[in-house]
Amino acid sequence: MKLLHADIIAVGSELLLGGRVDSNSVFVSNLLAECGIDVRKKIAVGDHRGDIQEALRASLKRADVIVLTGGLGSTLDDCTREAVADTFRRPLTRRKKAYADLQTRYRRFGRPVTPLLAKQALIPSGAMILSNTVGTAPGFLIREGHSVIVVLPGVPREAKVMMASQVQPVLRKIFKSTGQYWFHAFNTFGLPETDVQKQLGLILKEYAHIQFGLLASPRGVTVTVSCWVSNGSRSSVKEKSLFFPVWEHLINQVRDCLGPWLFSEGERTMEEIVGELLRGRSWTMALAESCTGGLIAHRLTEVPGSSLYLDRGVVSYSNQSKREFAGVPVSMLRRHGAVSSQVAKAMAKGIRMRSRVDVGVGVTGIAGPGGGTAKKPVGLVYGAIDGPRGTQCQRWQFWGDRTEIKLKTSQAMLDLIRRYSNETAS
Amino acid sequence: MKLLHADIIAVGSELLLGGRVDSNSVFVSNLLAECGIDVRKKIAVGDHRGDIQEALRASLKRADVIVLTGGLGSTLDDCTREAVADTFRRPLTRRKKAYADLQTRYRRFGRPVTPLLAKQALIPSGAMILSNTVGTAPGFLIREGHSVIVVLPGVPREAKVMMASQVQPVLRKIFKSTGQYWFHAFNTFGLPETDVQKQLGLILKEYAHIQFGLLASPRGVTVTVSCWVSNGSRSSVKEKSLFFPVWEHLINQVRDCLGPWLFSEGERTMEEIVGELLRGRSWTMALAESCTGGLIAHRLTEVPGSSLYLDRGVVSYSNQSKREFAGVPVSMLRRHGAVSSQVAKAMAKGIRMRSRVDVGVGVTGIAGPGGGTAKKPVGLVYGAIDGPRGTQCQRWQFWGDRTEIKLKTSQAMLDLIRRYSNETAS
Repeated sequence: MKLLHADIIAVGSELLLGGRVDSNSVFVSNLLAECGIDVRKKIAVGDHRGDIQEALRASLKRADVIVLTGGLGSTLDDCTREAVADTFRRPLTRRKKAYADLQTRYRRFGRPVTPLLAKQALIPSGAMILSNTVGTAPGFLIREGHSVIVVLPGVPREAKVMMASQVQPVLRKIFKSTGQYWFHAFNTFGLPETDVQKQLGLILKEYAHIQFGLLASPRGVTVTVSCWVSNGSRSSVKEKSLFFPVWEHLINQVRDCLGPWLFSEGERTMEEIVGELLRGRSWTMALAESCTGGLIAHRLTEVPGSSLYLDRGVVSYSNQSKREFAGVPVSMLRRHGAVSSQVAKAMAKGIRMRSRVDVGVGVTGIAGPGGGTAKKPVGLVYGAIDGPRGTQCQRWQFWGDRTEIKLKTSQAMLDLIRRYSNETAS
Repeated sequence: MKLLHADIIAVGSELLLGGRVDSNSVFVSNLLAECGIDVRKKIAVGDHRGDIQEALRASLKRADVIVLTGGLGSTLDDCTREAVADTFRRPLTRRKKAYADLQTRYRRFGRPVTPLLAKQALIPSGAMILSNTVGTAPGFLIREGHSVIVVLPGVPREAKVMMASQVQPVLRKIFKSTGQYWFHAFNTFGLPETDVQKQLGLILKEYAHIQFGLLASPRGVTVTVSCWVSNGSRSSVKEKSLFFPVWEHLINQVRDCLGPWLFSEGERTMEEIVGELLRGRSWTMALAESCTGGLIAHRLTEVPGSSLYLDRGVVSYSNQSKREFAGVPVSMLRRHGAVSSQVAKAMAKGIRMRSRVDVGVGVTGIAGPGGGTAKKPVGLVYGAIDGPRGTQCQRWQFWGDRTEIKLKTSQAMLDLIRRYSNETAS
């Protein structure tokens, strides 16, 4: 089974020693997969001409497509265009179209195209220009022997638009797809990785050509199911129609196995799912957060249109604010402590009443590193929901550093809201 | 100048097509640099024995140190230990110590070590075990010819502890450092990348052996300054003492050039800096956030001890909550609209008064994608501070998607608080 195969080379010294991770390659891989091209390797190298060229030459030996990102800007350390031009002995020349685009772009910012900035209009001879409609530096595409080399700017938003609108159509035209990639992701929350695997049980062995993957994070465990199906030279449509029912059956089986732990499929986040459920029920919501410090509100408001269901949130760090915002009585705080099921429930009820919304949510806990005791250790969290289906409260003990505990708490709390909103009304 | 040189190989199909980025390599690089070892390449490959081996063999040709992360777990797709064992023809055997550690670990979770889990105690012959004190799967270290191969689990928290406590001492012992890495990062906010470069001016050309880097993101522009200084075989102390004043002078020059735009150096985040300033002034603060939806509160509460200065926050998405939380008058909302300097200032003043804190912060804007008009487009933001030094208000026009606008707004707002707290009291 001959598959088309790609390497991605991310250029930038900050990717090696500067605290940055290469996030472009995530969507580049996905967009290549849509063209039937499988990414086998991702490489990150610094802004050094020699290292870029070495990586490029190594990839040329095995890859049909090579996508380079980054190092196209106008600052001193950018040298990707020079490295690529050198490798293929294609001199860099200023292209009229690219230069005109730059002028238009900078005019909008009210700035002239200085010689430094004009460097961005240099393109290797024979390369196809990839216009940058959302930023400044254009990219380019080179066909060399049987390979296609794509060079994109490092800014994710720019690279993404160029990949989708200009690179994908060209790749589809150049390569008559030799195969098709089938991929599905299931996102679960509430079970450890090995229990998810147990839950899948025999399915894992039943399908020989399917690859399964399990991936744990503070957001839960994601199960991936993937498979390459090669197209017979003339019978691609037929093969697809044969494989489709098998795939459908498999997906349904996995879905059934994961049951209530499955919160979404594909790229959909927990906050999108929660938002959709609240909208579906026409419920409004208000949050009283203590240990998550606003993270739940932040996550919910990442979703466009969230103002339809999220009325307000409070971050009630101090005891005084717990009293003022959610009416938590001083006596309760004194008797049970701020981190207790009683206070979580009082916060949920209080914020619901005071905001006159359908659902009130309260969460209180110890995010650490300080503040823990033997009886109430760091990571202890109480979360409560108060709404049309009564009051629910849950206790968790999380592990990790402050950031992890906040993230896990936010995910657990959103999952609790999901399950609450999902229940069949009694 | 012969430098020690490392490659990092991250293993995991999710890194190629599953939306994940390899975050381990960030701290692995830093910890290697501390041992005088320079990372030249980072590679990500899937959970395929052949691909891991191909990457490993290629790196063996050029690298003194190879660090592999991931694929050591007990689930079906993990195969790093097998790939490494195969490459060096070192059979995998169960080590007593590793197995005993696993048993202790799982006993704490109240679970038996099943045959599937026991796989984690398999170590290639002749390899040194790297104990996992915070998770389950141990790592290992192999010396092969002149190279050192380090294999670590994929969980960042586990890999980090193992690198620092076990791998670094071994590397320092094996390699007498041939050089020393000097690195400094300056984090700025408020100037575009090319203006930062202009600001640095002649410094960029004055130092021949120093590498400068510029890195733009929604959090600002980071300037990195780095240099490898090789140790003469017997005079390392002397060379260091010669270089140190040069370096100090350079760092001071850069610091001066960046002036008020410089908000931190090294790894320190804006929220840490703001927290420190507030603490230094013994100021308490309360936030009224609209378009950032809790992100500013979330960022501030990422810092341990933030409860000392952050009294509370409100996410007042609805007009009603702007009125109730911060006393923004209906007439003002009607006359100027929720996104206006008047409302931002009223939010800051209102939340300050109602919370009886020193500093009140209000931010209102249009995060998009909906809600924009010709007069008030998506990305328009007003932020205000009310405190002991009077009221300050600023207007911004940001570009990007919802997530980007929220992030840029939070950074700009925190920077405004930083500058406000930094001013010399009048």
